[in-house]
Amino acid sequence: MKKYDVVIVGGGPSGIITGVTSKKIHPEKSYLLIKEEEKGLVPCGIPYIFHDLENIDQNQMGPKPFVDVGGEVLIDTVSRVNAEDKVITTESGKEISFEKLVFATGSTPLIPKFIEGYDLEGVEYIKKSYKYIDDLKKRVDTAKNIVVIGAGFIGVEISEQLAKFKDKSVSLIEAEPHCLYRAFSEDFAEKADEVVKEAGVHLYTSQKVEKIVGENGKAKGVILSSGTKIDADMVICSVGYVPNCDLAKEAGIDLSERGTIRVDNYFRTSAKDIYAVGDCSQTIGFITGQTDNIMLASTGTAEARVLGRNLFHIKFLRNFPGTLSVFSTEVNGVVFASAGAIEQSARAANVQYVVGKAQGMDRHPGKLPGASQLTVKLVVSPKNGAIIGGEILGGKSVGEMINIISLAIQKAVTVYELISFQVGTHPLLTTAPTQYLLIKAAENAIEDINIHDGKLI
Amino acid sequence: MKKYDVVIVGGGPSGIITGVTSKKIHPEKSYLLIKEEEKGLVPCGIPYIFHDLENIDQNQMGPKPFVDVGGEVLIDTVSRVNAEDKVITTESGKEISFEKLVFATGSTPLIPKFIEGYDLEGVEYIKKSYKYIDDLKKRVDTAKNIVVIGAGFIGVEISEQLAKFKDKSVSLIEAEPHCLYRAFSEDFAEKADEVVKEAGVHLYTSQKVEKIVGENGKAKGVILSSGTKIDADMVICSVGYVPNCDLAKEAGIDLSERGTIRVDNYFRTSAKDIYAVGDCSQTIGFITGQTDNIMLASTGTAEARVLGRNLFHIKFLRNFPGTLSVFSTEVNGVVFASAGAIEQSARAANVQYVVGKAQGMDRHPGKLPGASQLTVKLVVSPKNGAIIGGEILGGKSVGEMINIISLAIQKAVTVYELISFQVGTHPLLTTAPTQYLLIKAAENAIEDINIHDGKLI
Repeated sequence: MKKYDVVIVGGGPSGIITGVTSKKIHPEKSYLLIKEEEKGLVPCGIPYIFHDLENIDQNQMGPKPFVDVGGEVLIDTVSRVNAEDKVITTESGKEISFEKLVFATGSTPLIPKFIEGYDLEGVEYIKKSYKYIDDLKKRVDTAKNIVVIGAGFIGVEISEQLAKFKDKSVSLIEAEPHCLYRAFSEDFAEKADEVVKEAGVHLYTSQKVEKIVGENGKAKGVILSSGTKIDADMVICSVGYVPNCDLAKEAGIDLSERGTIRVDNYFRTSAKDIYAVGDCSQTIGFITGQTDNIMLASTGTAEARVLGRNLFHIKFLRNFPGTLSVFSTEVNGVVFASAGAIEQSARAANVQYVVGKAQGMDRHPGKLPGASQLTVKLVVSPKNGAIIGGEILGGKSVGEMINIISLAIQKAVTVYELISFQVGTHPLLTTAPTQYLLIKAAENAIEDINIHDGKLI
Repeated sequence: MKKYDVVIVGGGPSGIITGVTSKKIHPEKSYLLIKEEEKGLVPCGIPYIFHDLENIDQNQMGPKPFVDVGGEVLIDTVSRVNAEDKVITTESGKEISFEKLVFATGSTPLIPKFIEGYDLEGVEYIKKSYKYIDDLKKRVDTAKNIVVIGAGFIGVEISEQLAKFKDKSVSLIEAEPHCLYRAFSEDFAEKADEVVKEAGVHLYTSQKVEKIVGENGKAKGVILSSGTKIDADMVICSVGYVPNCDLAKEAGIDLSERGTIRVDNYFRTSAKDIYAVGDCSQTIGFITGQTDNIMLASTGTAEARVLGRNLFHIKFLRNFPGTLSVFSTEVNGVVFASAGAIEQSARAANVQYVVGKAQGMDRHPGKLPGASQLTVKLVVSPKNGAIIGGEILGGKSVGEMINIISLAIQKAVTVYELISFQVGTHPLLTTAPTQYLLIKAAENAIEDINIHDGKLI
């Protein structure tokens, strides 16, 4: 039986980064990464294979960086893990023994079995599979009326991209009052609705899909809770992702109450020498410390960098107390980003907060070509002024600006500190130094703290 | 004699922000801001009045935000400050008494009296004066051969913009080996040379202007230290700025060894109830703690926010130990930014450092339209891994990315912490989560620390 020091199950971003990071530190040890498909995809790049990229191959992502540092790759599916004897079995019949095992099994789209007609032909998903997406792209070619269920990031991005096909009608259905409502507060989410509509998508919010109707086993429309019927020859379900934890569960490894693989701060599962990282592993909310379900390549790779370094002994302390959700997207030329707590999530978690908001142009003077309006909102703990969340809306610069807020949250920066925050500004690149919006929002949050003095503090 | 609680001398960014911030907190107090010209300019926007802005009025900046909160403005020039009796005299003969006085007198271009011919007609400056720049713009219209002396930010930006006029020949002369050499290390500064040349500017580095030659009192060329003669009907000197401190000096207020007004952490001068902020006030280097000479609107306004809040009593602690230089610019479509220590300045200040560098695309996959190559360099203190500086080169996103580094420096974030830094990424906006460049650069710096273990630590 072949034996490896480290076996990684899964070839997504978290699996690859765990492997690369760890193998570089321990070149003397043997590493095997097992993945199901030869070719892999950049998961978040999938919406852009329809227009911006010339073909799906431009969106490939593979374990090359891992192979380059000496890791081995096996294309196969792990069918069983024996945690006690430290042996895995694959579908092709291989038995491989390991010293350390890492679950990086990722997630798959939630199949909405609660919707009648979910199993009709023409009901599709955004699966992180090269073969599936390659085929889906061909099926999209011939579709005329597409209904997308679920206006989270994937649903919004796919709808916006598909609506660029002038010969297709795209409808997007969301049960919440607004698009992207898990990541943005009311005013930002309203703006998201607006830009989605401007992109040519027929948007239905606060409505559920009651039924996918079919004919001869093929989807031909959906019926909404309002009674509205929408024709559809393709229905794309983007109602969430489910962590792939069956293998771990069958191996007797503990799961969290959310169904993810339970791990500690160093991604150790309940079984000795077995780890879990990325979408399949438990996350702990940064602000609340509660078990959470964040499935993002960015947080997964952050975890993987910690795990990769600490697989054999804890060498690099994990510096942040939990997983921070940081999101960004661009819809019809408008960029939305958020980090940490938003107003709804703060209220739901019973976290006291005030808000500071500021608006301005992302160039100075604002008449410079290419200038976009920028809106910044900070969510702040009123007692000590710590920044616990933020949202930004504007042009391309928002994509990196949100990471200033991310760092601020992770380092417990307060709005009082932001007053003397020294920034770089330039006419062609940023807001004016006199009104740098993160600082303005911090100033406004301080005013809010003062106004609500008696009430909140 | 009219009396004000607060008199601010100077209407640039630092003066205005001091006034706005303080008046909002103390609406009951009276504020007067005295400025020389009715109209003001966004200082860093001046290079863009030639092409990107339709006219100079689109680059106006005035004390409106200060007036909006109840401040008064006087257009006049202060000719004398009596620090003991707390009275100022203006050129128009007014006497005004004050409780608190703020010098925000800014800076003016250095006149290179060491260059023969500096006083010829046709020798120009980038003065922060509406009237002067308005006239200069007209004079530029008729100029054919323009020589710019000094390839700092202003010199580079002006040269790049003027070179866009197809009927003009623009030459840029720099005594240092590269453009922008005070703000960027060798490899970045070399790239700056490249893009300046690509912009159509004739660049002469490592060369001094020996003499500006004239005919009938008018400049007609320059002679370089190499002997090269360049024709010029306009010579723009951008060899630095001098803080405006004569008024303070004449009032008996202490100056620093650099000729700036000496201040403490709360911008108090040696005279009771008299303050100084912005370009005219002393700065203390963030890393070294030595007296420095940083003159930037961004750091000036950061100081002004601290001063404005603390003018009557120290309420908001200043959180950062010194002034951090954060620069950014865009030249011919390439963005350059730096924050804190660079390799040359670290060496000059005898600060031990290692470097971590990383390169990648600012979209993922990199084939997405609009993608630019991005290069990040971190300067790191090897002992504790603290980030003390950084440089970034790439597309527009660099303008805000540098502020992640700024915040990291100001919060003493270490490269070890960056390993688990959680960021937001998006295909259309950032590098891939698997290779987010600030984290990659941090990883490379750690490798460098390990390699140099015996040598540096």
